[in-house]
Amino acid sequence: MVDFDRFCMSLAIDEAWKYQGLTYPNPAVGAVVTKNGKILSIEAHKEAGEPHAEVLAIKEAYHRLSGDNEILKLSDSAEIHTYLQQNAKKFFYDATIYITLEPCNHYGKTPPCSTLIKNLKFKRVVISVKDPNIEASGGVDNLKKSGMLVEEGLMAKEGEKLIEPFKKWRGDGFVFFKLAQTLNGIIAPGIISSKKSREYVHKIRDKIELLVIGGNTIRTDRPTLDSRLVQGRAPDVLIYSKKKDFDKDIPIFSVKNRKVYIESSFERLKEYRYIMIEGGEGMLKATSKIVNWYLFFIAPKFKEGLGYSLNRELKILNKRNIGKDLVIWSENE
Amino acid sequence: MVDFDRFCMSLAIDEAWKYQGLTYPNPAVGAVVTKNGKILSIEAHKEAGEPHAEVLAIKEAYHRLSGDNEILKLSDSAEIHTYLQQNAKKFFYDATIYITLEPCNHYGKTPPCSTLIKNLKFKRVVISVKDPNIEASGGVDNLKKSGMLVEEGLMAKEGEKLIEPFKKWRGDGFVFFKLAQTLNGIIAPGIISSKKSREYVHKIRDKIELLVIGGNTIRTDRPTLDSRLVQGRAPDVLIYSKKKDFDKDIPIFSVKNRKVYIESSFERLKEYRYIMIEGGEGMLKATSKIVNWYLFFIAPKFKEGLGYSLNRELKILNKRNIGKDLVIWSENE
Repeated sequence: MVDFDRFCMSLAIDEAWKYQGLTYPNPAVGAVVTKNGKILSIEAHKEAGEPHAEVLAIKEAYHRLSGDNEILKLSDSAEIHTYLQQNAKKFFYDATIYITLEPCNHYGKTPPCSTLIKNLKFKRVVISVKDPNIEASGGVDNLKKSGMLVEEGLMAKEGEKLIEPFKKWRGDGFVFFKLAQTLNGIIAPGIISSKKSREYVHKIRDKIELLVIGGNTIRTDRPTLDSRLVQGRAPDVLIYSKKKDFDKDIPIFSVKNRKVYIESSFERLKEYRYIMIEGGEGMLKATSKIVNWYLFFIAPKFKEGLGYSLNRELKILNKRNIGKDLVIWSENE
Repeated sequence: MVDFDRFCMSLAIDEAWKYQGLTYPNPAVGAVVTKNGKILSIEAHKEAGEPHAEVLAIKEAYHRLSGDNEILKLSDSAEIHTYLQQNAKKFFYDATIYITLEPCNHYGKTPPCSTLIKNLKFKRVVISVKDPNIEASGGVDNLKKSGMLVEEGLMAKEGEKLIEPFKKWRGDGFVFFKLAQTLNGIIAPGIISSKKSREYVHKIRDKIELLVIGGNTIRTDRPTLDSRLVQGRAPDVLIYSKKKDFDKDIPIFSVKNRKVYIESSFERLKEYRYIMIEGGEGMLKATSKIVNWYLFFIAPKFKEGLGYSLNRELKILNKRNIGKDLVIWSENE
């Protein structure tokens, strides 16, 4: 038997995972709108400053129900809010919205989503987890007060996992290890991942505060470590190295608006909240106590070259394809 | 925008992939029933002799629409057919069925699915690919003659890929390479995969005609290579080895009702139609010209041990979790 509520929430969760790592400092959130059992939209929050998942899902559902192409011209969240409140009132009285996270209840960069949902008089609101951010929370109470049918806790385990990075970077910091490899575990030499995967890595580099990398990689690969494939900013870099001498002609040192530290400890990480580590066996071993999650880019090929060898139990959190590569988020077991 | 037809067909295709390798000699097939845009069921053919995907999907949809628990007592396909034709006529006149493969049109182990669909007067039948099996084909024509709305070719590329093993084992034979490894590409020593993955491998061993394995693996692991975890049959085995002397106390030689060949060529494969190869680097290299697909069981862990090294470009066909392992079907690029 297909459990329709679970099915819709799992679609929302999967959609949100597609932008995991890119929404900083916001959480990854997904939303699905249904009406009479029909799925009208599946959306996710894509990056800070862009509309929230609920807003995108309601926008898409409204367009689908009304055929009103005017709304497609709007991309600013406040404008979409206003337009929907003016035009969409009659469409959602028998609709359900599934959201992986409690809708926000404060005026941040956008008006509160809870107010939008309340004003559009949705029949039912199904939420996976409550917002741990006190400032934005209260959405559920706001909705319940209006007499709306609000259900919480559907797939709460999965919903919590989705916002774990968010909770960590609001706390001590979130640290993940990015590893590009072939199916047979080869990480070098040469370019391992597809163009699309590398673009995704650049999108992430555009968001992270600090990139940690080993000294040998700097000496061997002579990298730039910026976000040029997506015209993004370059994160600060910590080169983890006992030897402090580097050829300063290596491109990494000439990127503007970034700090480069060369240090033999990880103390520096305490100053940052969103951190990516790149490297191989040495860095995996050195950072074992520090890493929260792993992000694998697995190219579907066998290759002769350098592998990596250590013992560690992991757990897969999410998997999907980016281009022809397989992309996996995982954590320590 | 969610394309509902594509969405439903992709659900059917994904469901069918869950039983890829287990339906021999039948094709892997999935089916989804919807009514007024609601998804009522998502089913797949599980093994030969069991009901076809369409029958399971209609059974589940009927149960959901009617609340008639009697149908849950039926597992025999002919009985389900009869029961549905007697009781389900009024439920599907405005329903759509999505099927990854043209419904069968002949009396095989079960009555023809095309007749069932025709008699239940579905409004719309959406099919990914036509049946390459002349004997069973004609389902589309049968349905069209009855005035039903029949659409073919939705996600045909994915639909064709799904039945490629079926087409091959009806032709020269289908050969796939099974590889159990960790995320960092380690294949030995010790047990790599989870219990659930190993059970799935035993289910496959219960279906294949021939298992091909290297002589060194036999000498080192001293395996049984049967299907004891699922109480299945043991396939014939070809031990690929130049040295022909083996300790006959190795369990593989005492399994009843199986042939064991010890040969230094792959000529024997021509006598079989559904063949699995197990092994590591040596076997991967030796069988490069023979292998159609690869089946990876990737345990989410890093391990120190024996890897494998070669150059080959692959393409991922399907990925999913079995227990905590990641399971990937792929083919040569």
